[in-house]
Amino acid sequence: MKQGFETSEFQARVKRAQSQMSQHGLDAILLTTEPDVRYFTGYLTRFWESPCRPWFLVIPVSRGPIAVIPSIGAVLMARSWITDIRTWRAPDLTDDGVSLLADTLRSLGPHIGTPSGIQSHLRMPLTDFERLNASLQNPIGSDEGILQNLRLVKSEAEIDKIRNACRIAGRAFDRVPEIAEAGVPLERVYRDFQRLCLDEGADWVPYLAGAAAPGGYGDVISPADDRPLSNGDVLMLDTGLVSDGYFCDYDRNFAVGSVPAKVDDAHAKMIEATYAAFEISRPGTTAADLFYAMDRIVSNGSIGSDAGRYGHGLGMNLTEWPSLIPTDNTVLVPGMVITLEPGIEISPGVALVAEENIVIRDDGAEWLSTPANPKMPRLKG
Amino acid sequence: MKQGFETSEFQARVKRAQSQMSQHGLDAILLTTEPDVRYFTGYLTRFWESPCRPWFLVIPVSRGPIAVIPSIGAVLMARSWITDIRTWRAPDLTDDGVSLLADTLRSLGPHIGTPSGIQSHLRMPLTDFERLNASLQNPIGSDEGILQNLRLVKSEAEIDKIRNACRIAGRAFDRVPEIAEAGVPLERVYRDFQRLCLDEGADWVPYLAGAAAPGGYGDVISPADDRPLSNGDVLMLDTGLVSDGYFCDYDRNFAVGSVPAKVDDAHAKMIEATYAAFEISRPGTTAADLFYAMDRIVSNGSIGSDAGRYGHGLGMNLTEWPSLIPTDNTVLVPGMVITLEPGIEISPGVALVAEENIVIRDDGAEWLSTPANPKMPRLKG
Repeated sequence: MKQGFETSEFQARVKRAQSQMSQHGLDAILLTTEPDVRYFTGYLTRFWESPCRPWFLVIPVSRGPIAVIPSIGAVLMARSWITDIRTWRAPDLTDDGVSLLADTLRSLGPHIGTPSGIQSHLRMPLTDFERLNASLQNPIGSDEGILQNLRLVKSEAEIDKIRNACRIAGRAFDRVPEIAEAGVPLERVYRDFQRLCLDEGADWVPYLAGAAAPGGYGDVISPADDRPLSNGDVLMLDTGLVSDGYFCDYDRNFAVGSVPAKVDDAHAKMIEATYAAFEISRPGTTAADLFYAMDRIVSNGSIGSDAGRYGHGLGMNLTEWPSLIPTDNTVLVPGMVITLEPGIEISPGVALVAEENIVIRDDGAEWLSTPANPKMPRLKG
Repeated sequence: MKQGFETSEFQARVKRAQSQMSQHGLDAILLTTEPDVRYFTGYLTRFWESPCRPWFLVIPVSRGPIAVIPSIGAVLMARSWITDIRTWRAPDLTDDGVSLLADTLRSLGPHIGTPSGIQSHLRMPLTDFERLNASLQNPIGSDEGILQNLRLVKSEAEIDKIRNACRIAGRAFDRVPEIAEAGVPLERVYRDFQRLCLDEGADWVPYLAGAAAPGGYGDVISPADDRPLSNGDVLMLDTGLVSDGYFCDYDRNFAVGSVPAKVDDAHAKMIEATYAAFEISRPGTTAADLFYAMDRIVSNGSIGSDAGRYGHGLGMNLTEWPSLIPTDNTVLVPGMVITLEPGIEISPGVALVAEENIVIRDDGAEWLSTPANPKMPRLKG
């Protein structure tokens, strides 16, 4: 698969942003996080793992983007389609890009926005943000949700990348019997599953969660411990691996040896819930509709567990907007990529969680992950 | 090695924070990022990869920490030593923890700080931060650098974890000849090197950078491409792998087949620079002193490349304070863990970069990575 995107795709993204900025009277948008900067530039590097240096991208309303970045990033940024690249030698303990950024913004006009709503954060020190605001005509305000609006709907090229990530994970899930059986400690399974993901083509594996416990599990965000898998356990692995900058995010459950019939039944019911949501996934359906379609099946309409939601958007982040919760009335449109993630309680504190990835199409939805078999696969007990 | 830390270690960290808070007249500190929250709680999960939900930890000046977190994290947080855990069902589109956090902070007093200086950011939406400030007596101010002061100096238990991460990487580097030789594309090398890191015991591999080019390289933050290694290349791999929540961060250079003598000479000189910095690393030396000790050797005192620095702190983040730059006068004290990371230019745009990890001791320093051989190792050309 081709790496990155055509320049025309980035130009179209900028144009859509500018059209919305113009409607909201914004002179420019300031971006500071990895996915937001990459969305418009294609700037892909794991160097963001280092929190020492801020990075800025400015989208003016009526000209091309301006990168205001540490000089260490100049060579790579120059390979992108961005031509206006302004650098400083970072880290600078007295002025870490702030005056360079202030000069840039002042030249563009008084109305600057930055992503400020749910799931956003400002990736720069608060003290520097205050200094920046103090040197502008007006303090920086909200981007009016423009970034969220844009990133919510994926292009065909983005969908291809997410599908590819899903396929890589699918091949790794198929090979779980090679690495997991009774007696193998969970932390070994985690390590080896990440190796399988890499072997099958993942660029890296930022996220792996899971659990293993008798007949179901209670917590899905704990790190792995050294307890060996044992007969009767359900093993769940949930991966967010990355291919060319895009995530998949789905899981699989496995029975170690034999599990009680009620565990198999719960699994089948949960898979039924993902199909029920898939069936109504089309333009016009809301995120809340999907929640209720699944909740009806997995918890008889009791509004699910305290974990909060039955799925979410997916793309350059592991989790994006919308949220499949009763209060999210986001209307689905073609190109939205979402996860269907119902959980089902078997007994107090013992549950199962399923997850699939789909994309909304003109007349329905398409599976990006190959949906799980209702019958849980078996590992050697 | 034992996972996590004794409760007494967390209690001591809180006590040190409270003593500094008391000096600065702070009633509480608000923390929002993964390493800051984990520093006081031990709360370790890869779930932070999801940017949807904010997480808050409050350190009051005169009582134990309070976790204000999404309910999905309650089970895992309850396994930590923290007993005051307040939860809300997140994401909540109208009040994502803000009023719960505001209630908590109001009960503690009017003077609240949060990390605001270099390398910090606030991991919550700006709009929510404004709402929070509006509901407090005073807006939240700076933490007066307290988090930076504390995290700058590692405990013996933290040093053990970093040393362990370094050893895992060392074993993976030793096995590079198994996966890299002329004809193997760089992206295959990246994938396989991550697999080696996992195989040798890494929990995960958040960071891998590197380069391969004839006789040296120009850029060290680009993702791998599909160009095969070829005779005369220098391959560099730089990894930040994690073991029990702590990073190593160092690199190794390899010659593919034969390289010109001047490349070997440059490598040897660069390694000499790391030893020169190591020799003067002891309490009382400054970060700037280390910069100059290396710069003298690798660039004849020309203040190095535009990349900016010759090393940095290391711990729960891949890069931490201080920075080895001419303007950072941080005085080294026992327990600081730093990287020594000189670069050397061979010809314009062609360079090599070395990196080692050390810890400052009472009477000098200790290598945490086993220092590289001045003679570059060879891969099959």
